[in-house]
Amino acid sequence: MVSKKIAVLPGDGIGPEVCRQAVKVLEAVAERFEHRFDLSSHLMGACAIDATGNPLPDETLAACRAADAVLLGAIGDPKYDHDPSAKVRPEQGLLRLRKELGLYANIRPVTAYDVLLAHSPLKRERIEGTDMLIFRELTGGIYFGAKGRTADGEAAYDHCTYSRPEIERIAHLAFRAAAGRRQKLTLIDKANVLETSRLWREVVRELATQYPEVSVDYLFVDNAAMQVILSPTQFDVILTENMFGDIISDEASVIAGSLGLLPSASVGERVALFEPIHGSYPQAKGKGIANPIAAILSAAMLLEHLELHTEAALVREAVDEALNNGILTPELNPTAPYTTEEVGNYIAFWI
Amino acid sequence: MVSKKIAVLPGDGIGPEVCRQAVKVLEAVAERFEHRFDLSSHLMGACAIDATGNPLPDETLAACRAADAVLLGAIGDPKYDHDPSAKVRPEQGLLRLRKELGLYANIRPVTAYDVLLAHSPLKRERIEGTDMLIFRELTGGIYFGAKGRTADGEAAYDHCTYSRPEIERIAHLAFRAAAGRRQKLTLIDKANVLETSRLWREVVRELATQYPEVSVDYLFVDNAAMQVILSPTQFDVILTENMFGDIISDEASVIAGSLGLLPSASVGERVALFEPIHGSYPQAKGKGIANPIAAILSAAMLLEHLELHTEAALVREAVDEALNNGILTPELNPTAPYTTEEVGNYIAFWI
Ligand SMILES: CC(C)[C@H](C(=O)O)[C@@H](O)C(=O)O
Ligand SMILES: CC(C)[C@H](C(=O)O)[C@@H](O)C(=O)O
Repeated sequence: MVSKKIAVLPGDGIGPEVCRQAVKVLEAVAERFEHRFDLSSHLMGACAIDATGNPLPDETLAACRAADAVLLGAIGDPKYDHDPSAKVRPEQGLLRLRKELGLYANIRPVTAYDVLLAHSPLKRERIEGTDMLIFRELTGGIYFGAKGRTADGEAAYDHCTYSRPEIERIAHLAFRAAAGRRQKLTLIDKANVLETSRLWREVVRELATQYPEVSVDYLFVDNAAMQVILSPTQFDVILTENMFGDIISDEASVIAGSLGLLPSASVGERVALFEPIHGSYPQAKGKGIANPIAAILSAAMLLEHLELHTEAALVREAVDEALNNGILTPELNPTAPYTTEEVGNYIAFWI
Repeated sequence: MVSKKIAVLPGDGIGPEVCRQAVKVLEAVAERFEHRFDLSSHLMGACAIDATGNPLPDETLAACRAADAVLLGAIGDPKYDHDPSAKVRPEQGLLRLRKELGLYANIRPVTAYDVLLAHSPLKRERIEGTDMLIFRELTGGIYFGAKGRTADGEAAYDHCTYSRPEIERIAHLAFRAAAGRRQKLTLIDKANVLETSRLWREVVRELATQYPEVSVDYLFVDNAAMQVILSPTQFDVILTENMFGDIISDEASVIAGSLGLLPSASVGERVALFEPIHGSYPQAKGKGIANPIAAILSAAMLLEHLELHTEAALVREAVDEALNNGILTPELNPTAPYTTEEVGNYIAFWI
């Protein structure tokens, strides 16, 4: 029996409804294993702007810092996207949270579930057996460099920078993960054009000598964007910088057949954060059609991170039951769909 | 009967062998239509470094400037990729050529050929009917901004900048192309994070009022990386900045079933350049297995650019004949493959 503080940030759009199912599953785990999970909800994103003017209120940040782990739904609202000059945007909350919590590594597993191969846009024989783990740097690069306009507003700039220690810390995580898997690491960069990419290559090449059992591959990002679709099974661990990781990991997610299945973990200096990779999907909000599985699998990653391995495995088994029995939302079961809540109930009941 | 100067840059790897077939086809066109094509070959890329120390010798640049059009094979050699600290690299030749010739727009058509749908990694029903035209900005952004290391070498930077006129000129090309096609333009950016992207969105939104018949869509690049695979038929004209265009256009190329089929045009202030989108593929060099069709279709785009529309159409017909009759290199016809030269001969003979 353990006692843990989990800060829950439901966020915007479908965030709250999928988070609710993940929380239900965590509560079922707590009951079954007699743990105490202190699950408190806090505002972040568009809902926080609406309520407080700030996408990441101090109260929320303090709660995350004090927690053992953070569970996030999704953030973002189209009303901000359509106004590029908006001064305050939901995404700023997420970016600041990543920076403040030192969440320098975003980790995304991508696997092809056998029962769902029919839903993938890719042909079965290409993707069967896909099992990759993507490490995306999350607190550096062009996301966090200086950005702005010239005085006359006629030109804009975004600066990308990386330092050796920023690359080293996430590279060590990726090498260690590869060592425990199929011993292959692929660095994705654009070293034929970018100086930052050349530094990534240099550092990874140096660190590689400390992990002689891991074989290292280097791919230019344009080629990688093809390889991920052409032969995804060639990848084990992928390591890449922030912007390339944003693109390549979303691209890779199509393999699974639904965005609604993929969890992610963001880890770093202190507390870790877990979230589905899908966005806030505002068109689906409140309709009961959002797939809660990505949020529930994010909760499983959270349990894993808290060293609750049996509990995490049980959640994954429960998800497999739902997948194998077709207890799925409309995008995966169009003929006899279940609602977000029904899928959550089924999985929680199975715990 | 016209008289035109065409500078040919065969380049590295399979570049020379595919260029040879494209030249053969251009010569067949000249003979049939009694044109005079002055086709002169010049060094660029790794071969130019080996011969002169310079990836873009002055003689080559001068020949390109004096030409009516440039045909390029491919450049690049792995011996430079494996040495990130190499001072001179083949890619520098290409980047400088783009800049010197003012080739600010790279244009890539992506179509799903019916006879080749079986070769695509994507399911037929997803891609049937795909017909998109990608406009990638080619002489700005992070490719051409300041780049370097801090004094101690422990950090690196790459600066991305865009000015309003840089965006306007390519946006006009894209809007005009969309107006003549299915009247849809999609801007791919990362306006929720990057200031340069917000400028792109601003400028495109402003110009849109001049093209009321064109409907405009905005997609974040991470979402775009999914949509290109999930439902490629939704796209007509895509417009995007240099780095995103590099990634998204290579990604989109997998739809066609072979990289060896896709041509591109780079246009701008003066002379235009035509090249297959595939790289120098050094592993295949000299084996007779490289597909010359992308180079031949690049030659067709070149003819189109010279206003030789009948000639261009004839080359495309000849390529269709090869496709329909299976006169194809091993990646598309593994059981009864033809060599690079046989495919080139067949197409040239058909002219
Ligand atoms: C919302 C956005 C700022 C964010 C990012 O680009 O990092 C998202 O796309 C993600 O991948 O978590
Ligand atoms: C070779 C390289 C510099 C180039 C680029 O990134 O522009 C290539 O990938 C391309 O797309 O033409």
